[in-house]
Amino acid sequence: MNKTSAGSFFEDFRLGQTIRHATPRTVTEGDAALYVGLFGARFAVQSSAAFATAIGYRARPIDDLLVFHIVFGKTVPDISLHAVANLGYANGQFLAPVFAGDSLSATSEVIGLKENSNRKTGIVTVRSRAINQTSTGVLEYVRWVMVRKRDEGAPAPGDHVPRLPTSVDAALLGAACPPLDVKAYDFALAGSPHRFSDYQVGEKIDHVDGVTVEEAEHQIATRLYQNTARIHFDQFAAAQGRFGRRLIYGGHVISLARALSFNGLANAFHIAAINGGRHVAPLFAGKTVFAWSEVLAKAELAGRTDVGALRLRTVATADRPCHDFPYKNGDDYDAAVLLDLDYWALIPR
Amino acid sequence: MNKTSAGSFFEDFRLGQTIRHATPRTVTEGDAALYVGLFGARFAVQSSAAFATAIGYRARPIDDLLVFHIVFGKTVPDISLHAVANLGYANGQFLAPVFAGDSLSATSEVIGLKENSNRKTGIVTVRSRAINQTSTGVLEYVRWVMVRKRDEGAPAPGDHVPRLPTSVDAALLGAACPPLDVKAYDFALAGSPHRFSDYQVGEKIDHVDGVTVEEAEHQIATRLYQNTARIHFDQFAAAQGRFGRRLIYGGHVISLARALSFNGLANAFHIAAINGGRHVAPLFAGKTVFAWSEVLAKAELAGRTDVGALRLRTVATADRPCHDFPYKNGDDYDAAVLLDLDYWALIPR
Amino acid sequence: MNKTSAGSFFEDFRLGQTIRHATPRTVTEGDAALYVGLFGARFAVQSSAAFATAIGYRARPIDDLLVFHIVFGKTVPDISLHAVANLGYANGQFLAPVFAGDSLSATSEVIGLKENSNRKTGIVTVRSRAINQTSTGVLEYVRWVMVRKRDEGAPAPGDHVPRLPTSVDAALLGAACPPLDVKAYDFALAGSPHRFSDYQVGEKIDHVDGVTVEEAEHQIATRLYQNTARIHFDQFAAAQGRFGRRLIYGGHVISLARALSFNGLANAFHIAAINGGRHVAPLFAGKTVFAWSEVLAKAELAGRTDVGALRLRTVATADRPCHDFPYKNGDDYDAAVLLDLDYWALIPR
Repeated sequence: MNKTSAGSFFEDFRLGQTIRHATPRTVTEGDAALYVGLFGARFAVQSSAAFATAIGYRARPIDDLLVFHIVFGKTVPDISLHAVANLGYANGQFLAPVFAGDSLSATSEVIGLKENSNRKTGIVTVRSRAINQTSTGVLEYVRWVMVRKRDEGAPAPGDHVPRLPTSVDAALLGAACPPLDVKAYDFALAGSPHRFSDYQVGEKIDHVDGVTVEEAEHQIATRLYQNTARIHFDQFAAAQGRFGRRLIYGGHVISLARALSFNGLANAFHIAAINGGRHVAPLFAGKTVFAWSEVLAKAELAGRTDVGALRLRTVATADRPCHDFPYKNGDDYDAAVLLDLDYWALIPR
Repeated sequence: MNKTSAGSFFEDFRLGQTIRHATPRTVTEGDAALYVGLFGARFAVQSSAAFATAIGYRARPIDDLLVFHIVFGKTVPDISLHAVANLGYANGQFLAPVFAGDSLSATSEVIGLKENSNRKTGIVTVRSRAINQTSTGVLEYVRWVMVRKRDEGAPAPGDHVPRLPTSVDAALLGAACPPLDVKAYDFALAGSPHRFSDYQVGEKIDHVDGVTVEEAEHQIATRLYQNTARIHFDQFAAAQGRFGRRLIYGGHVISLARALSFNGLANAFHIAAINGGRHVAPLFAGKTVFAWSEVLAKAELAGRTDVGALRLRTVATADRPCHDFPYKNGDDYDAAVLLDLDYWALIPR
Repeated sequence: MNKTSAGSFFEDFRLGQTIRHATPRTVTEGDAALYVGLFGARFAVQSSAAFATAIGYRARPIDDLLVFHIVFGKTVPDISLHAVANLGYANGQFLAPVFAGDSLSATSEVIGLKENSNRKTGIVTVRSRAINQTSTGVLEYVRWVMVRKRDEGAPAPGDHVPRLPTSVDAALLGAACPPLDVKAYDFALAGSPHRFSDYQVGEKIDHVDGVTVEEAEHQIATRLYQNTARIHFDQFAAAQGRFGRRLIYGGHVISLARALSFNGLANAFHIAAINGGRHVAPLFAGKTVFAWSEVLAKAELAGRTDVGALRLRTVATADRPCHDFPYKNGDDYDAAVLLDLDYWALIPR
């Protein structure tokens, strides 16, 4: 009896299959501190218990992306150990705040399977859901990955491409944000005077700073999420691979860009939803990451006057400052672009 | 009066001498989080408070090896500052669980002294014991190191080689594991269906994955344990030494191998005892560590039906995958082998 | 409306101006653990809750320098984003202990402005103050930095050099140290028998060990303090700069030197005041830091028989062991010197 998990190949998945993921994980102040050390996030709500509780949180919430990465990490051994590429995200919704001490676990449902024409790989789409220790849902999102087949001759295990929303309906936003007392929100302390009404659709913001990534940093971060994808950790194997180097977990770029975006979006304190995201190019250690954002849309939240939502595109680049907002040249991404992320962030009104 | 500690040379030790070590240390959720970031351990009991308390722990226990390293670190300034080599371990027993908030301190007793025939070095054997803030013993183990003499002409301070058990008696196992409600142990959540009865003596398991070590990682880990051995941190001195490089703390390899061993031993959640261990070769940054394990023996625990013990040999290698279980060629270790560790791990029955 | 902060240039400051800094920050056990991992501090009071509470602290205090760096980090975006050099510190006083869970925020007052003769830069002197969540002051200090002008033709915004004390008056020391029960202070456990009376003015101590710094380490540390100074993180920009490399935050050297100083000053557990400090030369990754200290003065504290104060000069060097106490050659610092720090530390009597 083989004791080690070999991971699933494309033909091993079934439509409708539900997978309970190991390992349950208690998120702590220790994780929050290490996350600050790795990314330097400065949003006041996640940084200060005094600030968070003054405006209505029962405690300082854990950074949304730390929650996302921990949940994502759980799915890797079951979903993407044989992934060739992590193709995209959709319909990500933060459903409840996570606080230090909460224990998270996750399941995924296979909602799409589509063999590629080369018959060597297929696209697996899963909806992953995370709950806390009281079985309250804290996050769900859809992702699709290109997974290798073990046996090219195996029949395709399904043939379905799910319809996914291009963005999360604004009516669904805000579940993870308690009602806030915005009078108690200290804009000077938070680092910017700009609130919901100050942002315009179409506005672009260069986040100015750049941050160089070291191998030790992305390895520590990715292990913190208990993400086991070999390509991030094993230089011995990577040396013989396509790039000759360890690939950095795509989520590392998301967190770097989010931390950089504080300079320009300091009050957009909570990611309420991830509409979509694409890892356009791989990142390697030694490169310097820059970012810029565009306000794609604005939305009021039904029944709430405390916060509004900005739909943002945040673009990250490698070794390329963003004062001129590099994005696409025709249909193709600028060669420096790493990440194209579309999400809703809440900001005081 | 010289204020700095120069460390002890071989002739400074005395048989029966007891040394109280600095520095007492409170272990916290912060240490546990950083340990996950450094090694990526995924055992459910140590990862999730909800999981741990459901089966009978009063809280999520601190990883056994984190406790071991912290205790080991305390002994370094007094025992092994002038060590040429860390030769071996024996009779390591985890005596009580350690939880976040516990404060640990340690003492060592010199139980063996044997000068080498070159009269330049000698072997010091110590039994180290750690207690928590209520003076409950949490760990004890024996280790022996080769220590330089300050003065080759000094008489040997003793001439005794202690008799040590080749393995810890199974009757002594389990003190650090409370009675468990195995019905509440969720094997799917823990990452494997395999329990005590599924493992066979002689069975070998390749843990598949490899992890490359960075200088920053082992330095952060080794400092976390307040281990001050210069050879791990001082490249200026190392450049003039035998290897030209910083040596990685041997315990770093143990923790890497243990974390890798999750894939194949996911339910062997607790190290109850360390029978013996040998650091066969030094590890340097940039190398990729792989591991495999063999089940050496199995033991039921007297009066307990919840857990059984697997006696395991876990072997770690550098830049050498372990699908063919590299170990020894005749009497000599395979050139890739770093670590040969023999221990008892508990696993649900 | 520009949403990003461009930072202040010399002509933007005003004498008497008070700046409230973002981001408020809760300090946790997670920060304390990561700080140990990054520096390996071993002072018993900060390391062990059992030790700290036995002598009279209500909990284990957060390392003084971790508090200093967190406060310093807050001031960077407002004060020193365009700094050419961080010139010095004076009159730093620790006013109350900080414990895990405390939330810190900071303000700075501009107390000096002096244009340089080249009219391209000026010296800005600020007094920064940090408070906890109950508005109790925990730290104040003065620092001065050389800041670029945006427009060389702009008039100087002021012309004042504040008079600053060369050292903090001993009568002001001890506010952050509760009355201690020195009978309960276990010198063996703390790592040294030496107390106040054992140190002599003029005594010099080589701290012996060296520690090599990695890029990942100083980046993680500096981000932990939410310090955003580009020069520490952006290799893409640094490659075109004066050094071609990322500069390491000067405070990193202070913390390394302080941790090294345990060997020789193990009972000087609390930094009560920073009299002055100078970053003599920049540090780059790959260098090994050594340190030595001199006892400049001793002071009893009014009304206290538990602790006394040692005025210490701690000097850090790069790639240069300190057995011969390298400092100055005439008026010039030895080429290996990085740091010249003058501070008061408390030690049991």
